[in-house]
Amino acid sequence: MVEDTAFDPAAIEKNGCKFMIGNGRAGVRGTLEEFSRRQLAACTLAGLYDQVPGKWREPVNAPNPFFVRVWLDGELLSPESRAPSAHRQRLDLRAALHSRETVFRLDDGCEVTLRAERFLSAADTHIGALRFAVSTSGGCRLVIEAGIDGDVWDLNGPHLRDFAESERGGVMRLAARTQEQGRAVAVAAAVEPAFAKDDLRGDEMIGWHGRLAHAAALRAANAEEHGRVARATQSAVSGDSGAIGAPRILRRMTLVARAGIEYSFVQYIAIFADDGVDGEGRPAPSAADAAAAACRAARAAGYDALLAAHRAVWAERWARSDVQIEGDDGAQLALRHSIYQLLIIAPGHSDRVSIPARGLSGQVYKGGVFWDTEIFMLPFFNHTQPETARRLLAYRRHTLDGARRKAADLGFRGAFYAWESQETGDDACTYFNVTDVFTGRPLRTYFRDRQVHISADVAVAVWRHFEQTGDLGFLAGTGAEVVLECARFFLSRACINPDTRRFELRDVVGPDEYHERVDNNAFTNAMVAATLRIALDTLALLAEHAQAARAELVARLDYGDDARRLEEMAAALYRPQPAPGTGIIEQFDGYRRLEDASLAEVRARVIKPNEYWGATHGVAANTKVIKQADVVLMTHLFRDEFSDEVKRANWEYYEPRTEHGSSLSPCVYALVAADIGKTDWAYRYFLKTATIDLTGNSKQYVGPLYIGGTHPAANGGAWMTAVLGFGGLRMARDFVSVNPILPSAWRALAFRFCTRGQWFAVRVTRAAITVTADAANTAPAAFELHGGARRDCAPGETITSATATA
Amino acid sequence: MVEDTAFDPAAIEKNGCKFMIGNGRAGVRGTLEEFSRRQLAACTLAGLYDQVPGKWREPVNAPNPFFVRVWLDGELLSPESRAPSAHRQRLDLRAALHSRETVFRLDDGCEVTLRAERFLSAADTHIGALRFAVSTSGGCRLVIEAGIDGDVWDLNGPHLRDFAESERGGVMRLAARTQEQGRAVAVAAAVEPAFAKDDLRGDEMIGWHGRLAHAAALRAANAEEHGRVARATQSAVSGDSGAIGAPRILRRMTLVARAGIEYSFVQYIAIFADDGVDGEGRPAPSAADAAAAACRAARAAGYDALLAAHRAVWAERWARSDVQIEGDDGAQLALRHSIYQLLIIAPGHSDRVSIPARGLSGQVYKGGVFWDTEIFMLPFFNHTQPETARRLLAYRRHTLDGARRKAADLGFRGAFYAWESQETGDDACTYFNVTDVFTGRPLRTYFRDRQVHISADVAVAVWRHFEQTGDLGFLAGTGAEVVLECARFFLSRACINPDTRRFELRDVVGPDEYHERVDNNAFTNAMVAATLRIALDTLALLAEHAQAARAELVARLDYGDDARRLEEMAAALYRPQPAPGTGIIEQFDGYRRLEDASLAEVRARVIKPNEYWGATHGVAANTKVIKQADVVLMTHLFRDEFSDEVKRANWEYYEPRTEHGSSLSPCVYALVAADIGKTDWAYRYFLKTATIDLTGNSKQYVGPLYIGGTHPAANGGAWMTAVLGFGGLRMARDFVSVNPILPSAWRALAFRFCTRGQWFAVRVTRAAITVTADAANTAPAAFELHGGARRDCAPGETITSATATA
Repeated sequence: MVEDTAFDPAAIEKNGCKFMIGNGRAGVRGTLEEFSRRQLAACTLAGLYDQVPGKWREPVNAPNPFFVRVWLDGELLSPESRAPSAHRQRLDLRAALHSRETVFRLDDGCEVTLRAERFLSAADTHIGALRFAVSTSGGCRLVIEAGIDGDVWDLNGPHLRDFAESERGGVMRLAARTQEQGRAVAVAAAVEPAFAKDDLRGDEMIGWHGRLAHAAALRAANAEEHGRVARATQSAVSGDSGAIGAPRILRRMTLVARAGIEYSFVQYIAIFADDGVDGEGRPAPSAADAAAAACRAARAAGYDALLAAHRAVWAERWARSDVQIEGDDGAQLALRHSIYQLLIIAPGHSDRVSIPARGLSGQVYKGGVFWDTEIFMLPFFNHTQPETARRLLAYRRHTLDGARRKAADLGFRGAFYAWESQETGDDACTYFNVTDVFTGRPLRTYFRDRQVHISADVAVAVWRHFEQTGDLGFLAGTGAEVVLECARFFLSRACINPDTRRFELRDVVGPDEYHERVDNNAFTNAMVAATLRIALDTLALLAEHAQAARAELVARLDYGDDARRLEEMAAALYRPQPAPGTGIIEQFDGYRRLEDASLAEVRARVIKPNEYWGATHGVAANTKVIKQADVVLMTHLFRDEFSDEVKRANWEYYEPRTEHGSSLSPCVYALVAADIGKTDWAYRYFLKTATIDLTGNSKQYVGPLYIGGTHPAANGGAWMTAVLGFGGLRMARDFVSVNPILPSAWRALAFRFCTRGQWFAVRVTRAAITVTADAANTAPAAFELHGGARRDCAPGETITSATATA
Repeated sequence: MVEDTAFDPAAIEKNGCKFMIGNGRAGVRGTLEEFSRRQLAACTLAGLYDQVPGKWREPVNAPNPFFVRVWLDGELLSPESRAPSAHRQRLDLRAALHSRETVFRLDDGCEVTLRAERFLSAADTHIGALRFAVSTSGGCRLVIEAGIDGDVWDLNGPHLRDFAESERGGVMRLAARTQEQGRAVAVAAAVEPAFAKDDLRGDEMIGWHGRLAHAAALRAANAEEHGRVARATQSAVSGDSGAIGAPRILRRMTLVARAGIEYSFVQYIAIFADDGVDGEGRPAPSAADAAAAACRAARAAGYDALLAAHRAVWAERWARSDVQIEGDDGAQLALRHSIYQLLIIAPGHSDRVSIPARGLSGQVYKGGVFWDTEIFMLPFFNHTQPETARRLLAYRRHTLDGARRKAADLGFRGAFYAWESQETGDDACTYFNVTDVFTGRPLRTYFRDRQVHISADVAVAVWRHFEQTGDLGFLAGTGAEVVLECARFFLSRACINPDTRRFELRDVVGPDEYHERVDNNAFTNAMVAATLRIALDTLALLAEHAQAARAELVARLDYGDDARRLEEMAAALYRPQPAPGTGIIEQFDGYRRLEDASLAEVRARVIKPNEYWGATHGVAANTKVIKQADVVLMTHLFRDEFSDEVKRANWEYYEPRTEHGSSLSPCVYALVAADIGKTDWAYRYFLKTATIDLTGNSKQYVGPLYIGGTHPAANGGAWMTAVLGFGGLRMARDFVSVNPILPSAWRALAFRFCTRGQWFAVRVTRAAITVTADAANTAPAAFELHGGARRDCAPGETITSATATA
């Protein structure tokens, strides 16, 4: 349970992320029900993008379906305008359930309490529900407005046009179309009061353009009184016309409240969008009809049934994904929050959507899917939600043509994946992705056209998913074409050194983006080498197990000659080696000659707080200070290839030179620290990673660009550090090894994972490692516990190894 | 004759260049005799460099040997402090003779006239002389200080330390050592009054540290009067101690002047420096001795004899180099001034010195030798001063090891010449050569490490010198090793495209420095192709004519395998081609995709006047606006390879997109305009080029960096445009063609040139071309006049062709 027990206006932005809910199709930020655009309220849709001319293309935020405001004698009840006497905001991680309770003491001493609880259904990802209650300590006049708020946060909006509001049978609908492609977005909401209708003094539907309908239920006992209240309220809220100053549709209920009575209602909601997945080509009215129908169905099912179905899905998720830490409640909460953040944004509904770098917490980074997904999130899904992992990779198959277009556009063959991928795989990353704070001019950056490792990241992820799952069908049907086209890209992107005849990757950007356009980035070359090997292995596997598929693929891709060239390049690809004596691997050609200024020195050169450190002339660009793990990430991803001495030498060399300007960095230092026995360092970096969306301690701006939001890659990094780092879980080709190393405060660590369809529970204490195979497993798996002898663990069996972890 | 007839304080800096004198060993700026550091007085030495820790390495300015100040009753006579009633400054281009005449009307109505004439001897480049005269319209008391002023202009000084002053036999000596290497610099001066010694009331030598000696000649008729004058003067000049506030040594003569009498004296000067050429390892006292001896010899020879010897050398120079324009006096003067500027800086004394980009006009650009010399100046010297051209190329042989070190340092083989070459060939260009005006930080630029065409420029220049002179001994003894090592550099610097297997030059900077780190710059690839061909041709020529030299060279350089690889790369080197339809050659891969903003649009984006337009983020860097001729320069250098249509298409495409941010640019557009018949454009760009050091209309600052000075490359460009452009002179392999095209104002154009040791005079009018071979020639040469039949021109013969030039 994540909880705040006081209201802090400065925490509104952070809490939008910390208390966020989502179901893979949409994310609703953790804002209070009365919040709107100014407080960054947003309901971000997965996979639906829009571009306003001249601005960045980014995800569409749907109208907020959970909008509720309570007015008391013309005063809007909001902790922003009146400090609450009590306030609590909660997120139940187990059920992805957001709740809040706020008490206001009014000038006349009357106390008003607002209570709300909401969720986006994980069982039916189009719907959700909100239960809202108001009670007062004394009689007073209340106006409750509940409905759909189109006035939501937009970074580069407005994305919606042609708003249409309507109401039928108590179901409000707000539909609109996107600016660029005219895609439909529709939200429906039905407000069902649980209090006696007699208490209502007014009840009407209000739209952007005026009063929509007097509800049939309107039975004012005292017409005169009601009229007075309604007029006063309207005047305070939105002027005399009855219209609303923004695209909203609301049910406005006027009550003369009695002390001690809880006036509650449920708001059932539904969201439909023509996101090319399940609403392809659907016109806005039709989307609105679909939403209304779903909303009616939800209302018919009722709140408790909906919540129960939702809870059931979440129970199943946690059963597979939870990691228990004994002895360290802070770490436990942070890790569960991290896992939670991954689970609420994982697309369960589509093969055409992946996870953006800021999840569904808003539009930051254009809603782009980065390498974050493949390298930092996929291990979690591979181990505990393999079908989600498969979907995430299917997205790369779906966007393969976009990657081909990008490669061709730059004069290369094969697939060069987008640095910031949206629904088509065409690159949303601009050539000018950072604004210079000194001149206000856009800076030419090379993320888009030189960060070639993205294609290797995808290929390696495909392969690791195959290795983890053994899913040959996935490899043949989805993965192989991706892998071959990525490898082909490198065949054409490389260059041959005319003196040595070795293949090199020049003019690239590695993970450390502060150093652009470098030659032979060690990480990139290692990833490219892996890609070539994977392409060859894939061809060999298909030859063995799927000859027809291989033949079809090779013929269709005209891959015969390239298959031969894979061997040539794999044999002659240059990879920077550990320097004799020091063991340090140069990050790229010439890195060693850069100024060895300390991080503090470089920081002291900063003139403006948000200035960008890279881009040729930034303060770090010509020093050894790096943005994030680069060589060290390579020693994690290919940890079998490097001795502990080399890993240690590089960790110790690069760690003090790393700014961690990316949230992807600390977890890598944590993972390698755990790998080489630096437990304290691993723990420190683990905490930094795992708490990022709880504390909100992350970079919020690069130049004038807002980059706040959730950090799914760090969330995935937290899981990796716990399970792969401290848990020491590692998949070898034919066995699983567990070599745990627990932080000093941890008494035990327990987790589950799946490999090749078999599930295992692992529990690590200082005394022992216990592995239990699910009874439903169909095959044994071999384990090496703490470096001991290899042992099979059959279905239902438990094996144990006494351990002596530090 | 270049002349100013009024004093303009704002023109002091410009006139320093416009009125400069020099003799290849030293340049003395065109400042008035009374001027010092503040007015940018400088005596810049060729080939002697020094570095103050933490600052840029640059040439050393010697103490100013021509320093004279006249005081009248304590008032320094200077047009800066008292507006002169008449002032004239002159430069006699024929004899490199600087003169001035200034009349001051004092408050009491008395008129004082200063006259001076000075030269640096072209006959003996260690010496020079100044004749100075003062006359007054009424009786008054004068103090004349004449001698050596060490307080000269320095950009990154002070470069001299351990100043030592002394005097013997009337010869003053000021010696010092450079900061970095302790190299000696010594200046001597002897002041010989031409007036009666009886007119002297005081006569003494004053040094930095006080009064040095009372001259033996001191015979004050009225000791009391002299004492009063001397005291008053000392007090006004430098305080009571008699010392001078700067490293100076002066002869101070006190006169009671009579009306109408001209008090004149001659100052004989000598300069010796341990520049590694003729003073290697010479200690400062010894340099001072050498200077004193030279000074005494000059004094013994007398002013008239020295001047006559000087004039004789200049007469010979002009006889070979003059270009006459009839009908356009402005163009005539500008062109002669351009030729003059080249002649005063050409090293006649050494094979180890070349011409810096700002000549000997100061320390700008670190006194670095750029490609300017090979591509923009060498054609002039090849045609009219071939022994100087040979010397300039010998400098590249002398600095070959520096070029090898640079290549090796960057991981390549062969010779990568310095972008800014000083005495060793190590690169003076820094990796941070421009300062950002917005942040004050140094900007990483890529002139030094990516502007690889410099090595091709050198190789092509070697070959063109050989073609012009037929000097096989030069090629075998000096040129071949340079050429082979440059070609070898490209063998290792290229990369092989793995798809096409063609050789490419990626990540380079072409002449247009606003676009850094580009791939396949058309100019660079063309120059590299030429270099490979030249290396192959050189090897073939040596095989035919100098087998032993070839064998020795190939063995010593271990060049066997590379000789084979030259063929391979020459056959497979990619060269960007004219686009079908338009004929436009893309400047580099992807240029066509840059923003096509107009020059005016780009200029309008400038925020600070001196901001740099390149360096990744400058206003031009991501547009099609280029700094200077690039593709168009290629169509000039390889004009036989391109059709007129292609030349025209590229001229018309790139011309409006060229900022001419380099003084090397206009002459190229002039040359190609003349080549394709755009006479008016050619004339316009010719004038811009030829007048640059007369008008001073050139860029003075890049960021906070001063870049003023003379423009020898433009000077060479003016000659090229006149002779090669308008004159249409062109060397083919076995004949000379003359295809003139005269600007409308020109009635005739006449020039001389030398090829393979044979001299010819050419005169072009609208009616005819006349070529006259020197009677002293030893062989005929074949000519094609205006596209007519080929005809031999035997020694002493004149051939004529009626022409119909526009």
